[in-house]
Amino acid sequence: MATINYSAAQLERFCRDAFKKFGFTEKEAEQITDVLLLADLYGVQSHGTQRLVRYHKSLEKGCVKPDAKPEIIFETPVSAVIDAHAGMGQLVSIYAMNLAIEKAKRVGMAMVSVRNSNHFGIAGYYTKMACDAGMIGLACTNSESIMVHTGSRQAILGSNPIAFAMPAEPYPFWFDAATTVVPKGKLEVYHKAGKPLHDGWGVDENGEVCNDAERVLGCIDGKKGVGGILPVGGAEEASGSHKGYGFSMICEILCSITSGGATSNHHKRQAGEGAGTCHAFMVMDPAVFGDPNTMKEQLSTFLTELRMAKRANEDQPIYTHGEKEILSAEQRRKNGIDVDVSTVLEMVNICKYLGMDSVEYLGDVDLSQAKQTTYDIK
Amino acid sequence: MATINYSAAQLERFCRDAFKKFGFTEKEAEQITDVLLLADLYGVQSHGTQRLVRYHKSLEKGCVKPDAKPEIIFETPVSAVIDAHAGMGQLVSIYAMNLAIEKAKRVGMAMVSVRNSNHFGIAGYYTKMACDAGMIGLACTNSESIMVHTGSRQAILGSNPIAFAMPAEPYPFWFDAATTVVPKGKLEVYHKAGKPLHDGWGVDENGEVCNDAERVLGCIDGKKGVGGILPVGGAEEASGSHKGYGFSMICEILCSITSGGATSNHHKRQAGEGAGTCHAFMVMDPAVFGDPNTMKEQLSTFLTELRMAKRANEDQPIYTHGEKEILSAEQRRKNGIDVDVSTVLEMVNICKYLGMDSVEYLGDVDLSQAKQTTYDIK
Repeated sequence: MATINYSAAQLERFCRDAFKKFGFTEKEAEQITDVLLLADLYGVQSHGTQRLVRYHKSLEKGCVKPDAKPEIIFETPVSAVIDAHAGMGQLVSIYAMNLAIEKAKRVGMAMVSVRNSNHFGIAGYYTKMACDAGMIGLACTNSESIMVHTGSRQAILGSNPIAFAMPAEPYPFWFDAATTVVPKGKLEVYHKAGKPLHDGWGVDENGEVCNDAERVLGCIDGKKGVGGILPVGGAEEASGSHKGYGFSMICEILCSITSGGATSNHHKRQAGEGAGTCHAFMVMDPAVFGDPNTMKEQLSTFLTELRMAKRANEDQPIYTHGEKEILSAEQRRKNGIDVDVSTVLEMVNICKYLGMDSVEYLGDVDLSQAKQTTYDIK
Repeated sequence: MATINYSAAQLERFCRDAFKKFGFTEKEAEQITDVLLLADLYGVQSHGTQRLVRYHKSLEKGCVKPDAKPEIIFETPVSAVIDAHAGMGQLVSIYAMNLAIEKAKRVGMAMVSVRNSNHFGIAGYYTKMACDAGMIGLACTNSESIMVHTGSRQAILGSNPIAFAMPAEPYPFWFDAATTVVPKGKLEVYHKAGKPLHDGWGVDENGEVCNDAERVLGCIDGKKGVGGILPVGGAEEASGSHKGYGFSMICEILCSITSGGATSNHHKRQAGEGAGTCHAFMVMDPAVFGDPNTMKEQLSTFLTELRMAKRANEDQPIYTHGEKEILSAEQRRKNGIDVDVSTVLEMVNICKYLGMDSVEYLGDVDLSQAKQTTYDIK
């Protein structure tokens, strides 16, 4: 795939100015950009610049309201429920996580849940906020239905990622994973490469395990309601399917049940309406269990023990969660971020739509190999 | 496998009297028995009567101290850290979960972590306590090292189960699962049946995926430190190995890092010493997010939607978590619990050791097909 290399600063400038043009304030545009850029730096590009076309369409079709402000509809010293009023997921989520951190600083732990929101980017951005404040953080979100739960052929649950982080040295424990076995993006990669899917990744409309990426993607993109991606643990209880399904349920309960919002199967996907996405943000101050420095030291030692364990393959290092992302960010800050040309074409289209000079922001680039996206909202 | 059928009342009487003879008070013996019996009723027999021989050996060898009392060593309105002083896991855990429930009733949410404990039975017993009190509950525990994490061939993490429950009708959402792909008991079943293990269940001492149950069990039982069971998600990141590994880490952080206790790889297994097991119990009062009845209704509706989804196989019902266990308990309360003869032999041996009349407690049973256990502590 052809790519174009941009510095983080260049992508940042483009995103910030584009979101300002979309109607967000300077500060809001910076916040959204910061979430997207962290995904690009961490190597989770599906949630960075690649996602811009979706935000563009969602804003154009009135699914995301740029002028929506988060409203606290229920609150106690340890909790809050926020209505996002169909605003940008990143904005309400930064607001909600900051609120959870403030509450946890005062009372030791807190959870804030959000309803009527939209896609919030990478869950791990918000746990990083907690972690940067010296806290233990958890963040999760529901999403459009994509997971076919154990014994079913119908997609009801979302990809329902759960992120969790705690400070440690030299890097924090930073876990962020969908509770599906793989993200949809992985199926797309296999489809493009003409490779058969692994067993236990997806099922077709009949609920049969299916190795044909095109067929599984056809179920998802065709909104057939049947077929989709399996939970982590695969298709059978023997391989732990019910475990991934269970973790997805925990996510759903924290997000949609506590907030009184829409469960994944009741998300909207029509022009003029917010998706109805729900999120949850939980924070614990380690100081409520003793000395935070002692805890941080113990965790750092344990993470080192895990990394220094006997390797299955001497040539392959063992990672702890978040380590690869930190290494990726260091490398990309230095060498720039390779953005595939189809994504650059989308960015050029966004420039046209917003009246921005694409050459000034993105350079005079060769897009002959770029494919036009087919993503749209009815 | 030959079994003998006992009523729940008969098993209860045996367990209660045995634990009294082991040196526990009437109330303590009842509490321990209640945890074990729920496992038998729910069909999780590996954690019920089958586990008695281990408790017997642990008490005999001084690993579990019957006179230990839980000590709160750090406390805030939302939290506590408890030292179990090598007491019976069930007792400190009931104490800790009750404390977390009380705190959550007062302030909305709380977490209590425990160090220097022993095996606590099924994690789901404690979330059921929270659920019965109208709360959202989470319980988890670390354990002896058994999980070989992604890229490693060394077992460092434990089976590290996570349980989560929330009230719903007609049954609560009640999830309880090890973060390993399968429990060790499953390998033993495959070993007895001479069946090859599924791919992605275990690795040998070289870190290679291994379908030979005897070889993987040899690594675990031989305390080789290498080889063992894989995380849910299997051996590779492609199948989500790092996700099971991550959930296991969350468990480890909540249990051992917050309590300042031993991580799974530092558990003890020697006569005279407690295992050093750590647990965590988190409780949230749904009332801190709004009306608990509305939330319960919404969750009940969602669980019904999941159960009524289009089935992969028309003849196979779709379950939500905890449903099978409730059905199993109803059936076993009515028809009794089938206990395999080898477990009954262990119970007869416990009677001999404690000076109890085994015929009075367990009947005059045919144990000719029973195998003597080899479980012991050095």
